[in-house]
Amino acid sequence: MIDAVRRFEGFEEVQRVMACALERVRDRFDSHLASDLPAVDRLVRHVEHYRGKMLRPMLVIAGGLATHPQAATTPGESLGSLIGDDHITAAAVCEMVHMATLVHDDVLDEADVRRGGRTVSRLHGNEAAVILGDLLIASAYHLCSQLDSQRSALLIGRVSMEMCSGELLQLHHRGDYSIDEATYFEIIRRKTGALIAASGELGAMHAGASPEAARAMAWFGSRLGLAFQIQDDVLDLIGREDVVGKSVGRDLAKSKLTLPVIHHLASADAVERGRSLAAIDDACREDAPPEASRAVRQRLDATGSIAHARTVAGALVAQARAALDPLAPTAAREALFAMADAAVDRAR
Amino acid sequence: MIDAVRRFEGFEEVQRVMACALERVRDRFDSHLASDLPAVDRLVRHVEHYRGKMLRPMLVIAGGLATHPQAATTPGESLGSLIGDDHITAAAVCEMVHMATLVHDDVLDEADVRRGGRTVSRLHGNEAAVILGDLLIASAYHLCSQLDSQRSALLIGRVSMEMCSGELLQLHHRGDYSIDEATYFEIIRRKTGALIAASGELGAMHAGASPEAARAMAWFGSRLGLAFQIQDDVLDLIGREDVVGKSVGRDLAKSKLTLPVIHHLASADAVERGRSLAAIDDACREDAPPEASRAVRQRLDATGSIAHARTVAGALVAQARAALDPLAPTAAREALFAMADAAVDRAR
Repeated sequence: MIDAVRRFEGFEEVQRVMACALERVRDRFDSHLASDLPAVDRLVRHVEHYRGKMLRPMLVIAGGLATHPQAATTPGESLGSLIGDDHITAAAVCEMVHMATLVHDDVLDEADVRRGGRTVSRLHGNEAAVILGDLLIASAYHLCSQLDSQRSALLIGRVSMEMCSGELLQLHHRGDYSIDEATYFEIIRRKTGALIAASGELGAMHAGASPEAARAMAWFGSRLGLAFQIQDDVLDLIGREDVVGKSVGRDLAKSKLTLPVIHHLASADAVERGRSLAAIDDACREDAPPEASRAVRQRLDATGSIAHARTVAGALVAQARAALDPLAPTAAREALFAMADAAVDRAR
Repeated sequence: MIDAVRRFEGFEEVQRVMACALERVRDRFDSHLASDLPAVDRLVRHVEHYRGKMLRPMLVIAGGLATHPQAATTPGESLGSLIGDDHITAAAVCEMVHMATLVHDDVLDEADVRRGGRTVSRLHGNEAAVILGDLLIASAYHLCSQLDSQRSALLIGRVSMEMCSGELLQLHHRGDYSIDEATYFEIIRRKTGALIAASGELGAMHAGASPEAARAMAWFGSRLGLAFQIQDDVLDLIGREDVVGKSVGRDLAKSKLTLPVIHHLASADAVERGRSLAAIDDACREDAPPEASRAVRQRLDATGSIAHARTVAGALVAQARAALDPLAPTAAREALFAMADAAVDRAR
């Protein structure tokens, strides 16, 4: 009982340390992106509206706290000392790389809404959005170089390459109604899993964690990333724009087949499959009416394909949690567990 | 006489060493960009068609040869030993950053032709072009991290940020008929001069050059870069597509005012200025007929504005040459002089 209370108290300390660290990450992000050119600075400030849950910075910070060699022996009130300046920088780098992909995604998706606000591409045109995304990538690498850690730089470079190849693979399979689950997972591992895995790993690396602990954090992040993307894809199919905070139904409109649809097509019999393909084809048209995607959703329900995707995401969260078994049972690890659970238990 | 011949012979050796080094740069570029995903690899191979003069890699190599502490005492047949593996990597990095901007520029410019071939955006769509550009940037940074030189990484990161801010500044002043020369120079210093300056500086840095020699190379590159961009802008106004090898007349079509036009508007009297603005406005329309830009060219000639731009470019080349005064008078320095002269004395 006393132990449980102590863990709960530790949990509050972790929340406080993380909130404080995230505030510093926001400052580092903004100050590094600030421009001496007023016209550029105005555009850059629009990126603030894209800021969401800050999942990747949270993972850097919580990963650092949970894997630090002194994690188990540091009292709650001293936890903040485990987070160094490099954690703040690494967290800002991960968020910048992520933001760059959001800005470019909006160009690719022709999306109108992001985090409940107008997108850069819609407000300032595609050209501004392309260059702003480039500026975010450049800033991320410049900031990353300040870490003076070749390992971090190589990791961020490699992950950025993987993200692009994942996007290109996805583009290649657009409109491919025979795409299989393996290809879907290859796409989301690269485009989403890799950076979230790197966030966890960077947190551990800059805490001086053991190689085993760093690997555990990378694996935790990669499983969490996949679960997160599957939930995103489910929300794009069944979510409401005003709740999700970004345009929904974009995947079908862009002929992007995600896990529920892939599962459905693989499990329906020949006749139903034919009908589903026709329904999907209708929903894939650029100006498809809302009924078209509603019809697809009903067909997905018939094969339990939304439920299947949720089950897969849940299993990935379980794998993520299991990856942290070797770590000391600290409040920071509890925070990571909570983040994993939240990834699939969210409406946005 | 004997001395002149010896210098000429040395010049041939420098040419040979550079040709050999550029071959290695091409290999490093291609192998670093190669993907394990066939769909991605096919797209990446299209970048080869973008390859042009390789000005930036040439500057890294020639800069390394000209500033090496043993530059003056190394016999011609041993010159190759002054170029290390890091020079090849740094040169490939500079070319990748440049290629990324070319690919994204074609999205922004809606250009059809680049280096005499179809652009990625035209062949595979804007989405593929945006992600391919991102992949090039990511690859450049990943490769740059392999140098294990924080100074190089910070330089490439800073320069990439400057390039983006230059592009954004240019975008901001699109359709601004009162843009002045100072703003034009600020734009081209960032978007073109910075990377060419960095190429020279990286060549010197990785040759173990003195800080003075590295600064001289950076200044040489920055002046050369400005001259190069002015010549590019002149060619866009007066060049022929089949000679220049890329779409011409794009600047006016995108309401981008360059040095000759800015000079003309500043030097014409009020009445002529009014007429010119009308002519420029006609040429700035998306579907302007060829006569429209021809009319602008005639008006530019009336104020000698093309000649003015060429004079400015020539003066910048002279400044570039003067920057190399402190370097030993080697054949490599002659090669740099020749590159500077070629920048303004070209039809493409």
